[in-house]
Amino acid sequence: MNLASLSDEQLNARLAALNDRYDAYAALGLSLNMARGKPGRLQLNLCNGMLDPALLGDYLISDGSESRNYGLVEGIPECRQLFAELMDVDPANVIIFGNSSLAIMYDLIAQYMTFGAGDTPWSRQGKLKFLCPVPGYDRHFAILAHFGIEMIAIPMDETGPDMDAVEAYVQDPAVKGLICVPMYSNPTGYTFSDETVRRFAALRPAAPDFRVFWDNAYCVHHLSDTPDRLLNIFKVAREYGTEDHFIEVVSTSKISFPGAGVAALAASATNVAAILERMKIQIICHDKVNQLRHVRYFKNLDGILAHMKKHQALLVPNFNAVLEAFEANLTGIATWTKPNGGYFISLNVPDGCAKRTVALCKAAGVTLTGAGATYPYGKDPADRNIRIAPTFPSRDELCKAVEILCVCVEKAAVEKMLSDRSK
Amino acid sequence: MNLASLSDEQLNARLAALNDRYDAYAALGLSLNMARGKPGRLQLNLCNGMLDPALLGDYLISDGSESRNYGLVEGIPECRQLFAELMDVDPANVIIFGNSSLAIMYDLIAQYMTFGAGDTPWSRQGKLKFLCPVPGYDRHFAILAHFGIEMIAIPMDETGPDMDAVEAYVQDPAVKGLICVPMYSNPTGYTFSDETVRRFAALRPAAPDFRVFWDNAYCVHHLSDTPDRLLNIFKVAREYGTEDHFIEVVSTSKISFPGAGVAALAASATNVAAILERMKIQIICHDKVNQLRHVRYFKNLDGILAHMKKHQALLVPNFNAVLEAFEANLTGIATWTKPNGGYFISLNVPDGCAKRTVALCKAAGVTLTGAGATYPYGKDPADRNIRIAPTFPSRDELCKAVEILCVCVEKAAVEKMLSDRSK
Repeated sequence: MNLASLSDEQLNARLAALNDRYDAYAALGLSLNMARGKPGRLQLNLCNGMLDPALLGDYLISDGSESRNYGLVEGIPECRQLFAELMDVDPANVIIFGNSSLAIMYDLIAQYMTFGAGDTPWSRQGKLKFLCPVPGYDRHFAILAHFGIEMIAIPMDETGPDMDAVEAYVQDPAVKGLICVPMYSNPTGYTFSDETVRRFAALRPAAPDFRVFWDNAYCVHHLSDTPDRLLNIFKVAREYGTEDHFIEVVSTSKISFPGAGVAALAASATNVAAILERMKIQIICHDKVNQLRHVRYFKNLDGILAHMKKHQALLVPNFNAVLEAFEANLTGIATWTKPNGGYFISLNVPDGCAKRTVALCKAAGVTLTGAGATYPYGKDPADRNIRIAPTFPSRDELCKAVEILCVCVEKAAVEKMLSDRSK
Repeated sequence: MNLASLSDEQLNARLAALNDRYDAYAALGLSLNMARGKPGRLQLNLCNGMLDPALLGDYLISDGSESRNYGLVEGIPECRQLFAELMDVDPANVIIFGNSSLAIMYDLIAQYMTFGAGDTPWSRQGKLKFLCPVPGYDRHFAILAHFGIEMIAIPMDETGPDMDAVEAYVQDPAVKGLICVPMYSNPTGYTFSDETVRRFAALRPAAPDFRVFWDNAYCVHHLSDTPDRLLNIFKVAREYGTEDHFIEVVSTSKISFPGAGVAALAASATNVAAILERMKIQIICHDKVNQLRHVRYFKNLDGILAHMKKHQALLVPNFNAVLEAFEANLTGIATWTKPNGGYFISLNVPDGCAKRTVALCKAAGVTLTGAGATYPYGKDPADRNIRIAPTFPSRDELCKAVEILCVCVEKAAVEKMLSDRSK
C-alpha cells in the first residue's frame, strides 16, 4: 500500500472503509493496554518457585552471617558474585540495592546534585545538560526533568546514538552525562555496535564530573537464538582510563518479578567507594533475604540464561503477532523495528500522525504509551514515534489491540494526507 | 558501694582486685557484642512462617491487581491499612516504602535539600540547624552530619526533650527541624509525656519549612504488660493546625526481619502528596510481594501486638539479666534506665569514664556501642553515656558480657577517682 499513489477519491473511499471498521471496534467498548513494559502473568508464574522458603535453608549466607538480620550494606557476597557474572565484572565492582535500578539512578543523580561527582556539587554549577538518545525511555527523561537538567536529544540508529553528535556535545562542560539503554534499547531494540561502545569509552568530555548511566535493563532479555552481543563497556573503558565515567545498572525486574526483584550497579573502584560512603549513611542494608532467594534459585549466570529462554518462548509469539500484523497492514504506511530482544517495538507512523493515532486508539479502548513519551519533554519533533509494548496482554487481547492499532495508524495517515493535499 | 567514701588505700586495694578479675577475663579471648540493636536468632525465628508462599495465594491484592508486577507506588491498599492501624492514622495518610525507615528519612532530607519543604530548597538557605534530643541515635546524627546540618544537643529526661529549650531554639529560622524517637527512645527507653507531645504540636517555629521526624521505631516494642502510651502526634497537631510539621516513620525491622521488613511513613495530606510526587519519579513501586506477605501474616494490629508478645517473652529475661547485674554491681557507681520497651538501656558511668570503660571492654573482648555515639558529632560532653543493647547475644553470652562490663565500669571509676585525688 502506497497512500501517496492514491487519488483523493481513492483516499476518501479508503477512509470511509477505515471509519466503518474503526466505529465497529469503538462500539465494542474494549479495554486493552499496550502501554507499559510489564511482563505478563505467564511470565511471572515462571519464577514462583523462587518463593519456596526451602531455598533459604538455614538463612545463613556464604560468610556465615544471617540473611534475616542487619548487615552487609553492599549486598551479600553470593549475590554480588551473581550480578558480577551477569555484568561480566569483578564482584568488588558490584553493589546490590533494593528492587529498582531506576531508584539507583535517581539516588545517584541526587547524590551528584548535592555532593558532586567530582569537586563541586552539580547543583552549584549553574545550568546542567544531559544527552538523551532518542527515541528513549520516558522515565529516564522524567528523572532529568525533575532535577532541572536540560535534555538534548541525540538521534539513534541501529548502531546506537549518533556518536559524532555525542563527541561534539561533550566539549561543553555543562554536559554532565548521558542516560542510555545500550542493549535492546527502549523502545527501538537496537544494541550499540562495538564501534559505538568504543567511542563511548574514548570520550574526553570537558566536564571532569561526567557520568554515563549505562542502563543495561535487557542484557539477557533475548528474543532470538542468535542474540545481539554488547561489548563490555568497562573492559574497553579500562584501555582509555575512563572507567569512572560509567555507571552500569541492571535488575531482575523482568527476570524474576517487577517490584520484587533485585537491582544492582557496576562501577569503578572509585565510584563504588563513593557510593558506599553515601549508602552507609542512607540505609543499614537492603533486603538480603530476597538477595539470597534470587541466588539460590538462579545459582549462576547459566541459571539465569536458562530461565530467560522460558521468557523468550512466551514472548516471541507476542512479538511475532505484532510484527506480522504490521507487515500485513502497515507496509508502505509506517516503519518499525524488529528487535532481537528487550520489551518493545518502535513504530514510526507518518510524520504528524503519532498523537492522532494514540488518541484514536484510546477512544477505541486501546491504551498505548503516549505519543512523544519516547522524547525529552514528551515532544517528538516529527510526531511520529510510538512505543509498542507487546508483553503484558494475553495473545488474544494483543491481536485484537494490534488489529485496532493498524486501523488507527492507517486512518490517521489517510486523514493527514487528505488534509495536506487540501492545503 | 560509694567509692567517694573509700580511702586511697581502700581504693587501691579495690583496684588491685578489679585488675586481677579484669586480667582473668581478658585472658579468655572472648568475642562478645552488645553494640547494635539487632534481634537475636530466636526472635528472627518467630516470623519464619511469613515466608510460606501459601500466604500469597494467587498473588492478587485487594484491588484485584498483581502483587508480582509493577504498580501502586504508594503501597498496596491492605498494607497501607495495616500501617494506618499501627500509627492510628487514616490509610490515605500512609505511604509504604521499602525495608528501611532510615532510608525514608534520608531521602526526605535529600528532597528538602534539593527541592525544599516550602518555597526554597534547604540547600539555598545557608546554615541549617537541627535539634537533637540527647542521648540519641547515632544514625540520625550521621544523616544530619552528612548533609552538613548543624546539630544542637537538647537534653532529655523521662518526659522527653527539654521543651523550654526546644521552644526557644525554634525561634531561630535556621532551625529546620528535629529528629527524635518519641517512644522507648534510643537509648534511654523514655517515652514522651502527653505534655511534651502537646508542646511539640503547639510549636510555632520561625522557619516556615520546619519538620519533625517522629521516628516511632519502637511503637509496639513493649517489655512490660503495663506498657507506655504515646499520645498520637497527628491528633494533637490537628488542634493546632501544625500537621505539616510532622513526618512519622515506622518499620517492621524489629517486628518481622531487619532488612527484609517493610517501612512506612504517616504525614499530612499535603506532605503525602509532595512525597508521592517525588516517588513517582524515583521508583515504579516498592516490593509489593513483601508487603502482601506482611499483611497476610499479621492480618491487623491485633496480629502484630500478639506477635510482639512473643518478642517480649524472649527479650525481658535479657533486659532483666543486665538490670540485675547493674543493680548488684554498679549501685552507687553508675546510673541506668529501666525501659518499659524498645531495644536499649542507657548507662551513665561517672563523668569522664565512658571512653575508658568502652576501651577496657573492647580489650577484654566485649564490643559496646562507641562512647559518645549517643551524642551529635560523637561527642558526649560529660563522657559518661554508654548505650547497652541486650537483644542480640545469647543469654549466656550476655551474662558474661555484662559481668565484664561491670568490672570495667568500676575499674574505670576507681582509676578516675584515684587520678582526680592525686591532682
